[in-house]
Amino acid sequence: MMGKRNPQLDADGKLVHLLTLEGLPAETIVSILDTAAPFASIGEREVKKVPLMRGKAVFNLFFESSTRTRTTFEIAAKRLSADVINLNIGASSTSKGESLLDTIDNLVAMNADMFVVRHGQSGAAHLIASHLQATGKPHVHVVNAGDGRHGHPTQGLLDLYTIRHYKRDFRALSVAIVGDVLHSRVARSLIHGLTTLGTPDVRVIGPKTLLPARVEGMGVSVHHDMREGIAGCDVVVMLRLQNERMKGALLPSSGEFFKHYGLTADKLARAKPDAIVMHPGPMNRGVEIDSPVADGERSVILPQVTFGIAVRMAVMSMIAGA
Amino acid sequence: MMGKRNPQLDADGKLVHLLTLEGLPAETIVSILDTAAPFASIGEREVKKVPLMRGKAVFNLFFESSTRTRTTFEIAAKRLSADVINLNIGASSTSKGESLLDTIDNLVAMNADMFVVRHGQSGAAHLIASHLQATGKPHVHVVNAGDGRHGHPTQGLLDLYTIRHYKRDFRALSVAIVGDVLHSRVARSLIHGLTTLGTPDVRVIGPKTLLPARVEGMGVSVHHDMREGIAGCDVVVMLRLQNERMKGALLPSSGEFFKHYGLTADKLARAKPDAIVMHPGPMNRGVEIDSPVADGERSVILPQVTFGIAVRMAVMSMIAGA
Amino acid sequence: MMGKRNPQLDADGKLVHLLTLEGLPAETIVSILDTAAPFASIGEREVKKVPLMRGKAVFNLFFESSTRTRTTFEIAAKRLSADVINLNIGASSTSKGESLLDTIDNLVAMNADMFVVRHGQSGAAHLIASHLQATGKPHVHVVNAGDGRHGHPTQGLLDLYTIRHYKRDFRALSVAIVGDVLHSRVARSLIHGLTTLGTPDVRVIGPKTLLPARVEGMGVSVHHDMREGIAGCDVVVMLRLQNERMKGALLPSSGEFFKHYGLTADKLARAKPDAIVMHPGPMNRGVEIDSPVADGERSVILPQVTFGIAVRMAVMSMIAGA
Repeated sequence: MMGKRNPQLDADGKLVHLLTLEGLPAETIVSILDTAAPFASIGEREVKKVPLMRGKAVFNLFFESSTRTRTTFEIAAKRLSADVINLNIGASSTSKGESLLDTIDNLVAMNADMFVVRHGQSGAAHLIASHLQATGKPHVHVVNAGDGRHGHPTQGLLDLYTIRHYKRDFRALSVAIVGDVLHSRVARSLIHGLTTLGTPDVRVIGPKTLLPARVEGMGVSVHHDMREGIAGCDVVVMLRLQNERMKGALLPSSGEFFKHYGLTADKLARAKPDAIVMHPGPMNRGVEIDSPVADGERSVILPQVTFGIAVRMAVMSMIAGA
Repeated sequence: MMGKRNPQLDADGKLVHLLTLEGLPAETIVSILDTAAPFASIGEREVKKVPLMRGKAVFNLFFESSTRTRTTFEIAAKRLSADVINLNIGASSTSKGESLLDTIDNLVAMNADMFVVRHGQSGAAHLIASHLQATGKPHVHVVNAGDGRHGHPTQGLLDLYTIRHYKRDFRALSVAIVGDVLHSRVARSLIHGLTTLGTPDVRVIGPKTLLPARVEGMGVSVHHDMREGIAGCDVVVMLRLQNERMKGALLPSSGEFFKHYGLTADKLARAKPDAIVMHPGPMNRGVEIDSPVADGERSVILPQVTFGIAVRMAVMSMIAGA
Repeated sequence: MMGKRNPQLDADGKLVHLLTLEGLPAETIVSILDTAAPFASIGEREVKKVPLMRGKAVFNLFFESSTRTRTTFEIAAKRLSADVINLNIGASSTSKGESLLDTIDNLVAMNADMFVVRHGQSGAAHLIASHLQATGKPHVHVVNAGDGRHGHPTQGLLDLYTIRHYKRDFRALSVAIVGDVLHSRVARSLIHGLTTLGTPDVRVIGPKTLLPARVEGMGVSVHHDMREGIAGCDVVVMLRLQNERMKGALLPSSGEFFKHYGLTADKLARAKPDAIVMHPGPMNRGVEIDSPVADGERSVILPQVTFGIAVRMAVMSMIAGA
């Protein structure tokens, strides 16, 4: 989708959009994680708000519905004191025949400061960012909240934040990513982030039908046997089995999937004793993860959610120049 | 649904959740009504906001859609300067197979301060409160905004507020509750509140098919003849005929219902000359209540709505510890 | 719909509701445009908010869904620091059998300060304003955000603002309004505004099937040939082809419509060299307007959107007495 220039950075290398973790420099990623750290404790204060984006208008443009992701962005923006306007575009102007870019032009004319975009098509957020560039609106910013199978960079960043929080140094880690990698923009974003930060050992584990062709090209090793794949790793990232995305018969059954790739205490015993367990949510308990593991002491699934708000506050305040 | 301990109060007897009026001590109810009093006039001020919940995050979790009730809670929370996030859960995560308690855990991880919960299942708000207790989250609060047929405590409280406003002393009152008591959580909550506050004469009036079995056990008298039932009473509470809840043929027709149990000027003449007329709304004019009565000088149906905002502000600010 | 008295003005001639541009005095219109001017630059400031309506409760009552118009009002109200509550009434109380005026009474009892009303029936906003008058609620205000085919006064005002911004003096202008005038409340409001402000030459252009009978009575000239109709004019206002409104076969095809009434560079060459091109949006590119014209240097379609926020801020703050 992108040309050679990195459309996320301005001429001085400052972050102006967050579109993808692919090609984002390590120092930018580290800077986001560092900025997020003080926000991670803001939620525990009596007054959870900071005035960094007071009077700024943030538009949540969700062409695919996702209450969960929209909510995290809405909370993050409100904690930054921004005004948030939620647009469920599916039911709106596009049904009246207006194009995506006409909608964007109109919202820019309403003095939008930032778009948080979820779209079923890969590259939608890039397209909007390029259009803003082409129409001379460099002061309007875009955050990709998930585009097709392509990427979900704030999810990738919160995963990185979580791993750094518990494991400190990426350069000594083994990370296993398990399940439906093929349909997962979460996995794609995380793999780009991990390799950029120098993680020496990233593994993807799943049946052939749920791994992308040539996934090794992303700098990961491939395993079809889960017990073998998670042996000795520091971090186990379970992916949601995207039932709603799968077309046709990629899988025999969810029971069969659980038997081979569901994370149980028994399989987890093969990882390091202090390995952490992650999941982007929402979980299918008993499909990709067993409830005792999901709720167990090595699970950091709920801290991921907390860190997710902090990371989104960091991204939004940084690109808004606050 | 509850054990012997009252899950709404902490060890010091302070209100931490509002789940039901059943078993709530009289002094707690009176304290809520007293706290609501100054809020009842806030709506008439130029600036209607107070900063009691500034920076707190209130989540409206409506598993049953109810624009009206959600709106009253949203207004109340905004007047307390809280941040309000509306979640229509029906269309969201639960459809992706996530359980109610996983949803709650996630929202708590986003640093929710309060849940306002409307659910079709009796006991849903209790379940959430118990879960918060069990997972060590005593700083997160729950308000039941209606659970199945069980209760609707803020409606009960606003009814009590209204009665106290016009009639002062519960210990000398006759209150008649008329109509579809069987399906009405409003009636249940009001009856608990009235008996707790020492109302000596509470009557339920309706056809056998719309009164719960053994309703006398709640401390009320039962009448099937409306003219007889409302004779000499101080307060007439008409219930909405819950068409959408009734399964099968409990009623011959709405016209037949109106003839026997609809409140007309003629029937109202049997109550005391200064009796007030209440209704939780939305009204079915010509079914349970005649328009001239609904709009008449003895109707306090619209003041109920105004007091409802004040009572919700009182409950939310009290349990938030503000 | 209205009696002889102008229900939009109080006894002192002050604007209390905005229902229609028909019969609104020229000085009132000019006063709104003058008030909007400083708001038109507020969107470019770092902090876009002014405290003129702090603590006021604005209810967006949209009985017809319109994300675009609702969003502009929501932004305008938030920039005035009001609390905004969005109600999608279609799915709400009215489906429970509650009448429009019962809904209004309830929201007034919740201390609403202002209703922004979009309704499919002509006269709905007038009905609400009359009801507020009749029930002694002169402090509650109504803005018509579109009622059936009748009017869309804030759209008319933003069109007037745009024309004044680029052309200064209405008393020397030729304005052409092209397309589906029959179904267009936008056209109706604009024609009333233009004639009130003394525009000497207002033309409507379209096929007979899309022009109202006796439209000449509104003080406009009628043209069926577009090249002839736009000759020498200063302003060309293209209307959206309201596909969703048309019943039956008023048009041969959208391609045929474009051929005769779509605005192309070729047809636009007949207008004055400095003529501006307007459209209320959302545009059907290739139906009523050609893309090079829509995006061309004479198009002021996006400035219209920006001015629309300013005009709505002006109307809301004026009628709220701020």
